[in-house]
Amino acid sequence: MPSLLPRRLSLPYTLSKVLNPVGGRSLFLLRDTKGILMEVLWLTEDDVISLLTIDDAIAAVEKAFFEHGMGRAQMPPKPYLYFFGYDGDLRTMPAYLEGLDLAGVKIVNVHTRNPGIGLPTVMALLILNSPQTGAPLSILGATYLTAMRTGAAGAVAAKRLARPESKVVGMVGAGAQARTQLLGLSRIFEIERVIVSDRSLEHARILEREARAFLECDYQLTDNPEEACNCDILVTTTPARSPVVRESWIKPGTHINAIGADAKGKQELESTLTKKAKVVVDDMAQAVHSGEVNVPISEGVIKPEDIYAQIGEILVGRKPGRASAQEVTIFDSTGLGIQDVATGSAIYRKATEMGKGIRLNFL
Amino acid sequence: MPSLLPRRLSLPYTLSKVLNPVGGRSLFLLRDTKGILMEVLWLTEDDVISLLTIDDAIAAVEKAFFEHGMGRAQMPPKPYLYFFGYDGDLRTMPAYLEGLDLAGVKIVNVHTRNPGIGLPTVMALLILNSPQTGAPLSILGATYLTAMRTGAAGAVAAKRLARPESKVVGMVGAGAQARTQLLGLSRIFEIERVIVSDRSLEHARILEREARAFLECDYQLTDNPEEACNCDILVTTTPARSPVVRESWIKPGTHINAIGADAKGKQELESTLTKKAKVVVDDMAQAVHSGEVNVPISEGVIKPEDIYAQIGEILVGRKPGRASAQEVTIFDSTGLGIQDVATGSAIYRKATEMGKGIRLNFL
Repeated sequence: MPSLLPRRLSLPYTLSKVLNPVGGRSLFLLRDTKGILMEVLWLTEDDVISLLTIDDAIAAVEKAFFEHGMGRAQMPPKPYLYFFGYDGDLRTMPAYLEGLDLAGVKIVNVHTRNPGIGLPTVMALLILNSPQTGAPLSILGATYLTAMRTGAAGAVAAKRLARPESKVVGMVGAGAQARTQLLGLSRIFEIERVIVSDRSLEHARILEREARAFLECDYQLTDNPEEACNCDILVTTTPARSPVVRESWIKPGTHINAIGADAKGKQELESTLTKKAKVVVDDMAQAVHSGEVNVPISEGVIKPEDIYAQIGEILVGRKPGRASAQEVTIFDSTGLGIQDVATGSAIYRKATEMGKGIRLNFL
Repeated sequence: MPSLLPRRLSLPYTLSKVLNPVGGRSLFLLRDTKGILMEVLWLTEDDVISLLTIDDAIAAVEKAFFEHGMGRAQMPPKPYLYFFGYDGDLRTMPAYLEGLDLAGVKIVNVHTRNPGIGLPTVMALLILNSPQTGAPLSILGATYLTAMRTGAAGAVAAKRLARPESKVVGMVGAGAQARTQLLGLSRIFEIERVIVSDRSLEHARILEREARAFLECDYQLTDNPEEACNCDILVTTTPARSPVVRESWIKPGTHINAIGADAKGKQELESTLTKKAKVVVDDMAQAVHSGEVNVPISEGVIKPEDIYAQIGEILVGRKPGRASAQEVTIFDSTGLGIQDVATGSAIYRKATEMGKGIRLNFL
């Protein structure tokens, strides 16, 4: 069999363009006995932890939301598998950023009994595919990535919606999501005080200890969520199914990142608060179905038309962000596949540049 | 940090049951410094080729269809990403066989321009997940698997629908799918003659040469599809968008495996043939949307109610298969995620038993 190299190179695509769209070292090699040797880059959670900074994640998520605002993002509805016998499910999140030519699929489970057997509740894998050829480029452990891109989303939204001089952050819920939310905000605002509320003061203490690694400031711990509302930016990260934050607790001018609600029936904020505030969502379809607004909409307290904007519409300049120092704003984050693909592609590019990861033979 | 082992083992699950549901060597190990070390088994296309026999695939697909017939299969609609600029798409196929406790997601592309740059049109990855914990267990190159499970589906269907004494197989189309279809049928029937028709006689010759490796018999090559219809079992594997097989060409008693149509607008058989024949599909929703019956239904020639059965209903005994030596039967194969998960799990079990593949650190 003659070498295939001359024939291939005579074609309109150059190999490097076809085969590694995000740049960096090519992951494809030629061999002349069996056609093309394809490689997939395997990146473990540890690799991702060592490669991904919150600034990378913020930059990637900002681009993803911008593209979404430009109407250049594909995110078909996520299919779920339900493991009824095990209190678990598996969600599949394909996404394509057309303008950036980045595509992939995240596969993520939620198994609430896992901690009881020493496993994480949520484990995620992200597969990145080349839009040009469909070939898988990289497979990444995506549990840390998921937390980081969610923290980045909160930061990107607060940058447009919170008062720029915001100094006090209130946290309702002190779990894993709380940490990356605070990490993201710490890159945008000059934070002087963090008020952490959790039903478990021990959890609040752990959050403080961990957050001091990246944010030295005044910390106030409480088990009373009302106290946390005495802030400029409020972050809710609980799995609540009935409101944990009352409308009357919220001061004029507050911005709220509502992170916890990610399924039908979940709600952290009193419904009337979503009626009073300017509500911005990440994606209209996902938010109406499973975001913070899903309960107020199903109750008839607000209508989908009452939602002010998708964050991408603000990023592209189609709609302004905060309009006055007095208004209350809410960012309803459900978590989008395009955030995963954009963030994962940034990690993949960095890994190929630095020679990290394990290069696996695919074909 | 004390060893976590005693606490874990005191729980209702034993580790081996939780962590390797399909049996074989456990892919999970404990370490006492950082909790559980999780491993994912990476199996390349070459690994799959060396491990998977057509008999394995037939057994797995038969089980999958049986479970489907029992109503114990989850297959949410597949989301598509469309890469319009590159004539390509990416399909995501999650599936859960509840009764067998097997779950996973296949990610597969179709890029028609790929052969021009030396890449396959279709490339697939299969991720197997534990229903118990959601953890990824194995990632397999799934392009060969896809062809094999499709060949297995044809065999499983023909076993119930073709006359048992069938001796002559007609093939319309001589591409990659044709080979695995013939391979599957060769395990069920005493084939004496194969009539291969393809617009390219060269393709027909290549199929004969390759098929002789597993089936020595009389081969007749032609570029006229009508000649191929002079058979007991007809297999159509073309990408046709208008019928290539006329109703008048089909003899009484023929069984037809209609494999090619897998998208809206695709059709290989004259619409009136689907009206005259007993039509069995793999999955009603998928077939009506994208199988051989999609065009006759959209034309109004048949209605979904005219479809006789899903193959699983025949396997579980709810409906009989072939009723007489005279009737014409059609199996409309669209390709199901449960076929991938069942076949992939069989490969994974074999690989763990034989110590094949690369064990990758996940967390």
